[in-house]
Amino acid sequence: MREILFQEIDQLYDEMVQMRRYLHQYPELSFYEFKTAAFIQDQYKLLNIPFQANVGDNGVVATLQGAKTGKTVALRADFDGLPIQDEKTAAYKSQNHGVMHACGHDGHTTTLLAVAKVLKKYQHELAGNVVFIHQHAEELAPGGAQPMIKEGVLDNVDVVYGTHLWTNTPYGVVQTAPGNFMAAADKFTINIQGKGGHGGMPHQTKDPIVVGSQIVTNLQQIISRRIDPLDTAVLSIGSFHAGNAYNVIPDSTTIEGTVRTFDQSLQQFIIDEMAKIIKGTCTAYDVDYQFDYAKGYQPVVNDPEHAEKVLVAAKSVEDVEKAEMVEPSMTGEDFAYYLQEKPGAFFFTGAQIKNGFVPHHHPLFDFDERAMKIAAKTLIAATLNVNQL
Amino acid sequence: MREILFQEIDQLYDEMVQMRRYLHQYPELSFYEFKTAAFIQDQYKLLNIPFQANVGDNGVVATLQGAKTGKTVALRADFDGLPIQDEKTAAYKSQNHGVMHACGHDGHTTTLLAVAKVLKKYQHELAGNVVFIHQHAEELAPGGAQPMIKEGVLDNVDVVYGTHLWTNTPYGVVQTAPGNFMAAADKFTINIQGKGGHGGMPHQTKDPIVVGSQIVTNLQQIISRRIDPLDTAVLSIGSFHAGNAYNVIPDSTTIEGTVRTFDQSLQQFIIDEMAKIIKGTCTAYDVDYQFDYAKGYQPVVNDPEHAEKVLVAAKSVEDVEKAEMVEPSMTGEDFAYYLQEKPGAFFFTGAQIKNGFVPHHHPLFDFDERAMKIAAKTLIAATLNVNQL
Amino acid sequence: MREILFQEIDQLYDEMVQMRRYLHQYPELSFYEFKTAAFIQDQYKLLNIPFQANVGDNGVVATLQGAKTGKTVALRADFDGLPIQDEKTAAYKSQNHGVMHACGHDGHTTTLLAVAKVLKKYQHELAGNVVFIHQHAEELAPGGAQPMIKEGVLDNVDVVYGTHLWTNTPYGVVQTAPGNFMAAADKFTINIQGKGGHGGMPHQTKDPIVVGSQIVTNLQQIISRRIDPLDTAVLSIGSFHAGNAYNVIPDSTTIEGTVRTFDQSLQQFIIDEMAKIIKGTCTAYDVDYQFDYAKGYQPVVNDPEHAEKVLVAAKSVEDVEKAEMVEPSMTGEDFAYYLQEKPGAFFFTGAQIKNGFVPHHHPLFDFDERAMKIAAKTLIAATLNVNQL
Amino acid sequence: MREILFQEIDQLYDEMVQMRRYLHQYPELSFYEFKTAAFIQDQYKLLNIPFQANVGDNGVVATLQGAKTGKTVALRADFDGLPIQDEKTAAYKSQNHGVMHACGHDGHTTTLLAVAKVLKKYQHELAGNVVFIHQHAEELAPGGAQPMIKEGVLDNVDVVYGTHLWTNTPYGVVQTAPGNFMAAADKFTINIQGKGGHGGMPHQTKDPIVVGSQIVTNLQQIISRRIDPLDTAVLSIGSFHAGNAYNVIPDSTTIEGTVRTFDQSLQQFIIDEMAKIIKGTCTAYDVDYQFDYAKGYQPVVNDPEHAEKVLVAAKSVEDVEKAEMVEPSMTGEDFAYYLQEKPGAFFFTGAQIKNGFVPHHHPLFDFDERAMKIAAKTLIAATLNVNQL
Repeated sequence: MREILFQEIDQLYDEMVQMRRYLHQYPELSFYEFKTAAFIQDQYKLLNIPFQANVGDNGVVATLQGAKTGKTVALRADFDGLPIQDEKTAAYKSQNHGVMHACGHDGHTTTLLAVAKVLKKYQHELAGNVVFIHQHAEELAPGGAQPMIKEGVLDNVDVVYGTHLWTNTPYGVVQTAPGNFMAAADKFTINIQGKGGHGGMPHQTKDPIVVGSQIVTNLQQIISRRIDPLDTAVLSIGSFHAGNAYNVIPDSTTIEGTVRTFDQSLQQFIIDEMAKIIKGTCTAYDVDYQFDYAKGYQPVVNDPEHAEKVLVAAKSVEDVEKAEMVEPSMTGEDFAYYLQEKPGAFFFTGAQIKNGFVPHHHPLFDFDERAMKIAAKTLIAATLNVNQL
Repeated sequence: MREILFQEIDQLYDEMVQMRRYLHQYPELSFYEFKTAAFIQDQYKLLNIPFQANVGDNGVVATLQGAKTGKTVALRADFDGLPIQDEKTAAYKSQNHGVMHACGHDGHTTTLLAVAKVLKKYQHELAGNVVFIHQHAEELAPGGAQPMIKEGVLDNVDVVYGTHLWTNTPYGVVQTAPGNFMAAADKFTINIQGKGGHGGMPHQTKDPIVVGSQIVTNLQQIISRRIDPLDTAVLSIGSFHAGNAYNVIPDSTTIEGTVRTFDQSLQQFIIDEMAKIIKGTCTAYDVDYQFDYAKGYQPVVNDPEHAEKVLVAAKSVEDVEKAEMVEPSMTGEDFAYYLQEKPGAFFFTGAQIKNGFVPHHHPLFDFDERAMKIAAKTLIAATLNVNQL
Repeated sequence: MREILFQEIDQLYDEMVQMRRYLHQYPELSFYEFKTAAFIQDQYKLLNIPFQANVGDNGVVATLQGAKTGKTVALRADFDGLPIQDEKTAAYKSQNHGVMHACGHDGHTTTLLAVAKVLKKYQHELAGNVVFIHQHAEELAPGGAQPMIKEGVLDNVDVVYGTHLWTNTPYGVVQTAPGNFMAAADKFTINIQGKGGHGGMPHQTKDPIVVGSQIVTNLQQIISRRIDPLDTAVLSIGSFHAGNAYNVIPDSTTIEGTVRTFDQSLQQFIIDEMAKIIKGTCTAYDVDYQFDYAKGYQPVVNDPEHAEKVLVAAKSVEDVEKAEMVEPSMTGEDFAYYLQEKPGAFFFTGAQIKNGFVPHHHPLFDFDERAMKIAAKTLIAATLNVNQL
Repeated sequence: MREILFQEIDQLYDEMVQMRRYLHQYPELSFYEFKTAAFIQDQYKLLNIPFQANVGDNGVVATLQGAKTGKTVALRADFDGLPIQDEKTAAYKSQNHGVMHACGHDGHTTTLLAVAKVLKKYQHELAGNVVFIHQHAEELAPGGAQPMIKEGVLDNVDVVYGTHLWTNTPYGVVQTAPGNFMAAADKFTINIQGKGGHGGMPHQTKDPIVVGSQIVTNLQQIISRRIDPLDTAVLSIGSFHAGNAYNVIPDSTTIEGTVRTFDQSLQQFIIDEMAKIIKGTCTAYDVDYQFDYAKGYQPVVNDPEHAEKVLVAAKSVEDVEKAEMVEPSMTGEDFAYYLQEKPGAFFFTGAQIKNGFVPHHHPLFDFDERAMKIAAKTLIAATLNVNQL
């Protein structure tokens, strides 16, 4: 049966590209994906698969009941965009100013809808149920996974799979890991309260831009000096904002960033070091500050057995040149929470455009759309394998 | 006559406070002072003094002809606000979100209108003409002074005076200088073009926030190390903006700031050192950049004789406790250009609230409103003195 | 036989402690270990084991011929000290000003001499030869290993073992790794040539201390921003020297440090990034510089089979509580070169003083002397195992 | 008489050059100027002028009694060298390793001895006494001036003059100021106590070089941000020392530097800001520190009348092209203390080698030796003028 379903995907490909490009033009920010959610609901209406809308906020969950008894497999795709201005010149670039599908969630959505369409066609041959989880708000903690789980989307699920189209990995390659696969991803905010004043009279002010700059520089040393070189952690600043006139020293600076770790004690150590550095630097310049640290998604930890099964599934796909175990990634994913509830695995579907690598979250981000076929086929194969179909 | 005019000002004081507080509530940004300009025009209509609107953009110039022949004296007041959010709790705080009269131009406008009203009343006793220059856009280069001068506001003028209500100086004190009085004030913009990407994968990016922070830090050393300690210069950063998501390393950082000097060769030296530091730092981190340096207002250089006359005028005002020559200020003013065309002087009218010093351009800025009386009387006395009235 | 030899080591223990403490008082710098080499030679004379002196400079190599034929096992111990001032209060602290056995090489030497003494006593029962390699200059590249190998110390050797007493590891624990075990350790020197002058006239100078400080700060970002968080590398500054008067800005600054990696392409990437950062920073401040990078020891890569054999040997020692495979260490060792020539393994013998951890190369460094017994017994057991004795 | 004495100086010039070059070859460090003091004593013995040795330590004071009554004039020259390695190629370069006359005190000594020789010859025509103060230890606080004054060298003195050969000023120019002339010069020492360890294991250490570098960078912001741009101050680091092996992170860093001010409240403000910055930075990195601030010489403040007299004297010298009042210098001098006791003035004698400017305290320092003639003649003229000779 697998081969027939694979052929169905191949035949759907042009339609998938069209759908993905449509979604690409109308990205929506996390928790505000109203039109995208409506679009997904429309598809399930067309497919005549029963679904539930507004799950855990904007999530959509459809369930396809197999003809025979068997295990229930959940497949998950996220559908939110990012606050990035699309700078591509492609005809299908974002039409929504300042919002962009810069992480491939348009492709995820398209892939899962294609899987649903194909499986629906062969519903009579399926064993067990397949649950299609279309999750909102993956990009912004606290994320959509937890509220959707809370509403019961995993209640009768035996196994959960998901994938990320991944431009760091060449097209044709599928990757996962037998344990730690993606990092804990936390958010921090530092607000420095100096004292503003005239740009020509700095001595009457407490310059929060100079202090902010020192903090950015000093924080680098946590990674370079304070953690064991054999440990793995990332500390990145994502935004730095201060002032709104060239000749006025502003009152305050706001810095936001993220910390990524795989280990709870290392996470705490970094928080403590940050607190020390921020306090010390603000003391040095006699300014007030507020340091907020919000622990984000926990690490994505695959079930080793299911990680292996994913590779087996991927290897059954003709377009896949290599399916391999790899080192974990420093990126985060709230797929973590599904795996805390149920066995399963998350994997990367290589989607790098040949000679055209652009990192995720970049204003020129795009991916090799053929990867959607590999993702769809691997999910189908893994799903069938669960019930030995 | 001077004493009678001073009494008129005293009687006008309540009205002046009311007018100033009204203007304070409706500040407008430089070059967008449409309603303020209309307000000023209305006042001249009420006073029946002929005026010209839209001079050099939003400027308003009224001319009062004295009954006798004599020299023509121009008095100038600016009327634009600043892009600062008013954080006062006063009833008269700004009603325009993000815009504020944080430099006292509401007081300047009120003062000059009061002077016009009083002089109008005694027009029959005046010798020579008095030109009331209400200038837009002092806070934002290229400023309103130059276009107004280009349209001829100084054409038949013999002497030009102006004042700034000044919270660095106690109420009751008037200050000027017999030469350099206010600094050249330039604007620079540094745009750092790195390479954005995922916050968890910094090695695939070129982090423009870290580079920007280094540039802010490195620029400090021009003042601390590269210029002669006996020379005077300021380099301040007014704004630093990068990124719009905590977990996305942005593509670029934009830094804006100001340089203040009194000397052209020092100005050029600082530009050259900035260029070296920015280039070197961007080379170190392999990022592109653009460095734009816009020379702003030239220094305000008083005519020594008229500076002396201003002090004489101030000393004739009863409320003035001290009228003195002082060291120059690092702030800038496009009053500079009037003084390049005609003899005259600019002076500070002390306006510090007792036990309540707030620097100019600060979100809590306010001034001792009684200073408007001193400013008005000093301008009147100086004007009368020109024609020995 | 193993058990008898272990008992001999136990009986030698007091003598070993005495010898180690004697050596501890008279440390010598790398390549200047003349008296230590003479001491070792004296011991072999006393043991009546033939040896060769001045091998590859100060090295000493003794060979004990077993009664039966068998494989030849080489055991290596290094014997140089470090340029650190001993700050211990122990009676046996260094008597040589500014030189210290801060890495345990006194213990290595003592251990190997004890092994030689015990094996000599049972020479009649031994199969194959045992080569005792006492190596000079491990702490200072290019090190003593390469010249000793060049002079043939491994010529007829079948297997080579060595150990490091290790205070990062608790007493009672033996550790090794089945491949990468210790890092490539390189040395770099940065000489910044500014322009000195009077401390009160900085603008006439180009301050090399400020530039050096910026370079130290900027180099941190290679580890924090430029390398993949999953890669492993260290960049440490070991010395920073500039100036010899508080009121004179000096001409130059000299910075020395080390880079540690396991991977040649990462090593080259770091060199390139360093070159960029140093060039950029020196350009920013218009100073000259020289950047010398000397590749040091290559990584210590164990033969997996022999790493396993070392753990087996360690487990046969009663005092050993745990013998385990561990993550590699960022420290370097020229034992690397023996393993490039012959199969074998290097291992850590835990020597941490209970509740008294002091890192290697620290002025208070000391170790649990009982670890010498574990080291000696493990080396003996591993040696016997080679010939199934 | 002045003209005859000037001719005597001209005739002595070759001898002066010889003497200066001899002294230049044998510089001695402050408080260790034993041979130089003996040399000076020998000269006074030859001149048959009574002197006192070991005044206030190594100082030498000779007194020439004029034939007639009159005011007593003291002339002062310092004679210590600096801890700088002479890098000149001149035949007369320093023979004492690491010590150098890099500030011209060899020339001062020669000049004063020449003045003594010439005045002695015309002793019968002199009115009043002339006191020749040869002061040790000007370069190192607490300096030689205070102990010499304490021993009474100014007891019967009416006026005190002194000069510095000055390479910042062209040959032929004499400069002084009618008040503040040279700055208060303080010394500070910062000792950072981190935790040393192995260069490959930074996380086990607290790296004092990284902290020291941050402190150097942060201290720049006192001058660039915290003091009024119209105020004058210098903060320079003269030495930074840490570590003695490339692969060992050291325990501590020692930083020394100087602060220069003219105003006591600004001096205290800078001390307070330094304390805050050092504390904050050390807190950020969790290291201990010691901050010692030693107030040095107070500012040199000339008597305005005597400053004017010095210019009059200089203008009577044919070789002087210009004698002018100038802005104060940021350098310090313990001549300050003579002027706290007695009226007088200190002045700069321009000594820049044409097209060969080298700053004071530089390893290539040298001066135009003809300036010694100008210095000697100006001192003679000023001395004669006091008694209207």
